[in-house]
Amino acid sequence: MFSVDLNSDLGESFGVYVLGHDEDVMKSITSANIACGFHAGDPQVMLKTVQEAVVKGVAVGAHPGYPDLMGFGRREMACSPDEVYAYCLYQIGAIQAACKVYGIPLQHVKPHGAMYNQLAKNPALAEAVARAVRDGGEGLILLGLAGTCFEKAASEAEIPFAVEAFADRAYQSDGTLVPRKQPGAVIHDIELAASRVVRMVKEGVVEAIDGTLVPLRPHSICLHGDTQGAVAMAAAIWEILVQEGISIQNIKEVLGI
Amino acid sequence: MFSVDLNSDLGESFGVYVLGHDEDVMKSITSANIACGFHAGDPQVMLKTVQEAVVKGVAVGAHPGYPDLMGFGRREMACSPDEVYAYCLYQIGAIQAACKVYGIPLQHVKPHGAMYNQLAKNPALAEAVARAVRDGGEGLILLGLAGTCFEKAASEAEIPFAVEAFADRAYQSDGTLVPRKQPGAVIHDIELAASRVVRMVKEGVVEAIDGTLVPLRPHSICLHGDTQGAVAMAAAIWEILVQEGISIQNIKEVLGI
Amino acid sequence: MFSVDLNSDLGESFGVYVLGHDEDVMKSITSANIACGFHAGDPQVMLKTVQEAVVKGVAVGAHPGYPDLMGFGRREMACSPDEVYAYCLYQIGAIQAACKVYGIPLQHVKPHGAMYNQLAKNPALAEAVARAVRDGGEGLILLGLAGTCFEKAASEAEIPFAVEAFADRAYQSDGTLVPRKQPGAVIHDIELAASRVVRMVKEGVVEAIDGTLVPLRPHSICLHGDTQGAVAMAAAIWEILVQEGISIQNIKEVLGI
Amino acid sequence: MFSVDLNSDLGESFGVYVLGHDEDVMKSITSANIACGFHAGDPQVMLKTVQEAVVKGVAVGAHPGYPDLMGFGRREMACSPDEVYAYCLYQIGAIQAACKVYGIPLQHVKPHGAMYNQLAKNPALAEAVARAVRDGGEGLILLGLAGTCFEKAASEAEIPFAVEAFADRAYQSDGTLVPRKQPGAVIHDIELAASRVVRMVKEGVVEAIDGTLVPLRPHSICLHGDTQGAVAMAAAIWEILVQEGISIQNIKEVLGI
Repeated sequence: MFSVDLNSDLGESFGVYVLGHDEDVMKSITSANIACGFHAGDPQVMLKTVQEAVVKGVAVGAHPGYPDLMGFGRREMACSPDEVYAYCLYQIGAIQAACKVYGIPLQHVKPHGAMYNQLAKNPALAEAVARAVRDGGEGLILLGLAGTCFEKAASEAEIPFAVEAFADRAYQSDGTLVPRKQPGAVIHDIELAASRVVRMVKEGVVEAIDGTLVPLRPHSICLHGDTQGAVAMAAAIWEILVQEGISIQNIKEVLGI
Repeated sequence: MFSVDLNSDLGESFGVYVLGHDEDVMKSITSANIACGFHAGDPQVMLKTVQEAVVKGVAVGAHPGYPDLMGFGRREMACSPDEVYAYCLYQIGAIQAACKVYGIPLQHVKPHGAMYNQLAKNPALAEAVARAVRDGGEGLILLGLAGTCFEKAASEAEIPFAVEAFADRAYQSDGTLVPRKQPGAVIHDIELAASRVVRMVKEGVVEAIDGTLVPLRPHSICLHGDTQGAVAMAAAIWEILVQEGISIQNIKEVLGI
Repeated sequence: MFSVDLNSDLGESFGVYVLGHDEDVMKSITSANIACGFHAGDPQVMLKTVQEAVVKGVAVGAHPGYPDLMGFGRREMACSPDEVYAYCLYQIGAIQAACKVYGIPLQHVKPHGAMYNQLAKNPALAEAVARAVRDGGEGLILLGLAGTCFEKAASEAEIPFAVEAFADRAYQSDGTLVPRKQPGAVIHDIELAASRVVRMVKEGVVEAIDGTLVPLRPHSICLHGDTQGAVAMAAAIWEILVQEGISIQNIKEVLGI
Repeated sequence: MFSVDLNSDLGESFGVYVLGHDEDVMKSITSANIACGFHAGDPQVMLKTVQEAVVKGVAVGAHPGYPDLMGFGRREMACSPDEVYAYCLYQIGAIQAACKVYGIPLQHVKPHGAMYNQLAKNPALAEAVARAVRDGGEGLILLGLAGTCFEKAASEAEIPFAVEAFADRAYQSDGTLVPRKQPGAVIHDIELAASRVVRMVKEGVVEAIDGTLVPLRPHSICLHGDTQGAVAMAAAIWEILVQEGISIQNIKEVLGI
């Protein structure tokens, strides 16, 4: 039987600032990537988001980012591997304390924004994060892009790796995402997005923007909760996957570990 | 046999900013209160300080503070108990990840600066911190002032509590410290400071500034490492305690847990 | 002829975080208190908000706060007068540079949140802020509570002072606000709020929650833009004041300076 | 008669953290680049440093940096030109308020660290900073590297530009600095450093590390105050320049504006 995880970035509110429809999108995912207070989130928001995930049966992951709240962790920063290692480990520990309060283990780590993008292409940074995941806790899973430095670093650090794909993004023939600035980069049609996810899960391929078929067999699909439209797409994708007989499980279950 | 722990606040450097003579004072203490990135410290400094403590056989404690780097956590802030709970838990988790890297458990938690002072007199805040210590990990010890809200909150949360005393500070007849602004508040004479510590440990009393004897039986003595003079005092006190036949052990050993 | 200014706290977004309906409420005010990057706002948000104010003909004021983004500047902090002086002066300068870009002078300074509340009752802090306003620029007006340390400090610093009143808040018989936690503290009825403002402006009194009449002759009325309801109230109050023949002018015009 | 300015980066302490020997090095410079609270410095430190500069007759410049206190503004960040414009303008305004307190004008702006390095090679960022300098105040001078985007952007923005050179750094034959990691990059010999400065000022050339002569006619020489050795070098260079008959003046005087 086919199975896949659905993940979303949550807990990105800060102080009085509210961001995202966390409670709504939690109904349509199995794994939450929760901000840890560097690019977004604060200790209270993190704790409350972990609690909500536990209540809804959603597995909890750390979503560490750069110390750049003003730029929401989206600006590349020339951090050293040692800095990135320390930043990730710190954030992993902080959210593990929140998990402990609610009696659950931390399931995975998915780096955020610019850190995510830099990891994909920078072996030394990817190695640093993989090491932080390994040191952060027994069995922690790294969630990231297939065929990039992510996967190689996870393999070398001997930590479990889960492949992430995007429901609403177009791919290039080399398996990378079409940059957001290009036309057609983002898929707004819910049916189309869902059918692409189904094909990825069942056939292990995605049709690239130039029509070629690209191999891609994700363990987890990234959905969004920042707008009501995104929440609706997440709910629809969940429904269609179920109709297609695909089992929606968290990352640990999909990996069978 | 008499025993006591010697503790010091460490890991308070930040980025390029260096504060304190951590490596030196670590030779003369058995427990380190390590800053966790809110009032001072950063992820790299924290990690390096934990490593140094491990190398020198010093037990590691969290030293959580208010999110006020500009004021070094020394300015009272009207935080709610829920905020203080979340801040402490977050910082405890962050340093626990660093401890995990070096294979040691976190021994204790000692709040910093304004938080420490507010806890002593505010039952709701003390309760919040005691709860964070309880939720933060099995066996974590709260280190604080005797006869204050600290001790009561620890008792109610059913967590171990260690009494802290100060080698270089004068006491009032009610057991509180003489405020720093008053003459005689700080003791600079190393011999005098050491003899007061010996008396606290062996007789369970300290002579207050008005000459009365105040009951005080500390598990741990707070020393400083911010100046070379402080480092010298720490080294001298260690020597004198040994000469007096007092066993210098970390907090866990002193409490026998 | 009667005249009054209508002010609102704006520019409180930060990075990706959006707060308030600035563009909407700007249609119904004559003076904007713009956040300066400490409790809220960032350099880009500040610049954009100043620009919008200029476009809409709204006078610009600084809205300095404590360096506590996580608490939105609402938590009292034990800052020294020298610290508060430096924080206000810094923020005044920062927004003056934005004003210079658009060729307008900074009109006034209204402290934010906890700083505002602490100033009202702490003479040394009020003196520090009044000094920062005086040093910040020729003719800068301090906007604050009548009959408090604000007014006295402004008088001693020989800077212009504008009295602020609240359209949607109940008053106690001593002229202070009914604390938010008490029943009846906030007035939600637009007609009632507007009629109270009209009476303050025309008769110089407000009816306290116990029915007594309290003298209060404001130069400026504080409105809110954080919800669509608040924006609607602001628009309605503007309309009613106009119908009542009250001239709505910015603070400088109301003070006639 | 030959003349040159001597500048140094100052005011980089933060809260309790002390960095640099500001008072000492101020005796040997004519222009101070003062941190503005982003990469270093805080409102109190900035104010105090401006005051010291005024007392010592040193001209004041802004030293704006990236919002990265943890990295001391030394890590390249992928900020947009609009962001960099806003950050510089904000910091320029903040220090101008401090200058106003002491009755002096802000003389110049010298970007810090990673921003400085990125400006040299990125025309869009250099244009943004030049625009912030132009908008920040009549007559403000941009201080930066000769022959880079700095100079071109200043020319296009029609603002005065002052060329900076380094006393203690080796140059490559193309006029750029030898990277710090390469052997010979830093010149520790005070006599040698001073003689190189004399030659730059009198002959308009510097000998590159490969022996070639590179044209370089600086208006200002950057000295350091972070160590006692640096302070001694600064003092010695001042002495030697005077002995060589070179007039040491601030940037405005050297430029004759």
